[in-house]
Amino acid sequence: MAHVEMLEAYPRDLHGVDMGKLAECIAACFECAQVCTACADACLGEDVVADLTTCIRTDLDCADICAATGNALSRQTGRDAGVTRAILEACAAACKACGDECAQHAEMHEHCKICAEACRRCEDACVALLTTL
Amino acid sequence: MAHVEMLEAYPRDLHGVDMGKLAECIAACFECAQVCTACADACLGEDVVADLTTCIRTDLDCADICAATGNALSRQTGRDAGVTRAILEACAAACKACGDECAQHAEMHEHCKICAEACRRCEDACVALLTTL
Amino acid sequence: MAHVEMLEAYPRDLHGVDMGKLAECIAACFECAQVCTACADACLGEDVVADLTTCIRTDLDCADICAATGNALSRQTGRDAGVTRAILEACAAACKACGDECAQHAEMHEHCKICAEACRRCEDACVALLTTL
Amino acid sequence: MAHVEMLEAYPRDLHGVDMGKLAECIAACFECAQVCTACADACLGEDVVADLTTCIRTDLDCADICAATGNALSRQTGRDAGVTRAILEACAAACKACGDECAQHAEMHEHCKICAEACRRCEDACVALLTTL
Repeated sequence: MAHVEMLEAYPRDLHGVDMGKLAECIAACFECAQVCTACADACLGEDVVADLTTCIRTDLDCADICAATGNALSRQTGRDAGVTRAILEACAAACKACGDECAQHAEMHEHCKICAEACRRCEDACVALLTTL
Repeated sequence: MAHVEMLEAYPRDLHGVDMGKLAECIAACFECAQVCTACADACLGEDVVADLTTCIRTDLDCADICAATGNALSRQTGRDAGVTRAILEACAAACKACGDECAQHAEMHEHCKICAEACRRCEDACVALLTTL
Repeated sequence: MAHVEMLEAYPRDLHGVDMGKLAECIAACFECAQVCTACADACLGEDVVADLTTCIRTDLDCADICAATGNALSRQTGRDAGVTRAILEACAAACKACGDECAQHAEMHEHCKICAEACRRCEDACVALLTTL
Repeated sequence: MAHVEMLEAYPRDLHGVDMGKLAECIAACFECAQVCTACADACLGEDVVADLTTCIRTDLDCADICAATGNALSRQTGRDAGVTRAILEACAAACKACGDECAQHAEMHEHCKICAEACRRCEDACVALLTTL
């Protein structure tokens, strides 16, 4: 996995960061960003799109926030603990909101089921990383 | 200003959101995202770039988080108060960290001075909007 | 305008770039990114959202591509002419597609009218900058 | 892989898109975006950062363009062939520029070696998808 190799190739000390949890959280953020983008689009492709507007909005927010979080976590130089903590909390909140919303449509729409699972994984990974900071 | 016109053209009720503070925060987020991206690059263009690596990193995080926040605030459909609050808090934290960092170089580097000011405006706009939620 | 001040504060020579056209294009890209994000959301808020799914998709693509272009144009260090040209061409194509799509709904939806205008401004700014490269 | 499951769960016909090449390109774009973000940061962490400013800039552009391309490719509703083609060409150009730049430092910096490889994979995936459009 390229993101793990990149962490191992970082030229300085990682200052006590839990590399396993960090790597897992980076992967979960990028996966969730992609899945939420695709879920918003799949909702647009449904005949019942008018019933899914809250789901689409929640997907779009979650995609943006996961992407920003994945980028911030990919940077090790000059880390600010307060910013890392705040963006992880925002990401966990966005993933929880999107996971809850998608879970409501999971039986009718397979893409919402997959998305709810990706959101749960990302929420869990953010919380797990937060507990180590 | 197009972002104000877009808020006025939104087809549904804005549910008691303070439109003035929302519009100001959207503008501040997009401005700060652009300025932080440009400040990271201007730091790269300085002979003393080796002294500015923390500043560059803080700029890049702030740019990503401001962009995600500006996008989330630009959406009115199906708003989730918890997510809005969490991303505003993360944005205020990123702007504070970047503003503090850039302020340290403001006398030597004009771009850091401009960036510190944009970060303060965005931090203030996030806090002002948070108090209305 | 902060983006103009940032260009003026760049510590090295801008190597013959037309600063006026560059500044205009940066502003147009960030404006168009914000407006397209808001237009996609306003379409979600319309009762006839099912008729607007192509418009929403075109908005979302245009927002992402304008944001990436605005960021790339905000960087002066180590510019690669081929990449700059290619992303400007992609941005002009996305703005043209989105402007054409939104123009079809401009009489019914004020947000599409505003968005079509922002797309035209951004397309024109990209083409104007391209002719100077 | 969640991005493949999402393509399979898309509720409408994919209109003759080569799903294998599309899935590979989506994965390559998100991987390359993450790796380029991490490579820019790893360059910032090197003692010789002053020699790597062009590499950092190329990384940042490539990260932004790959992210926008990965998002656009993740959307199937209302696809515009011209926009898809233009952003794929921009992404291939950014990946080639970044891959070439990183390859020059690949022997000295492991992160540049890994990044050059991710850029090549993404460039190849964009070109392969372009040939099917």
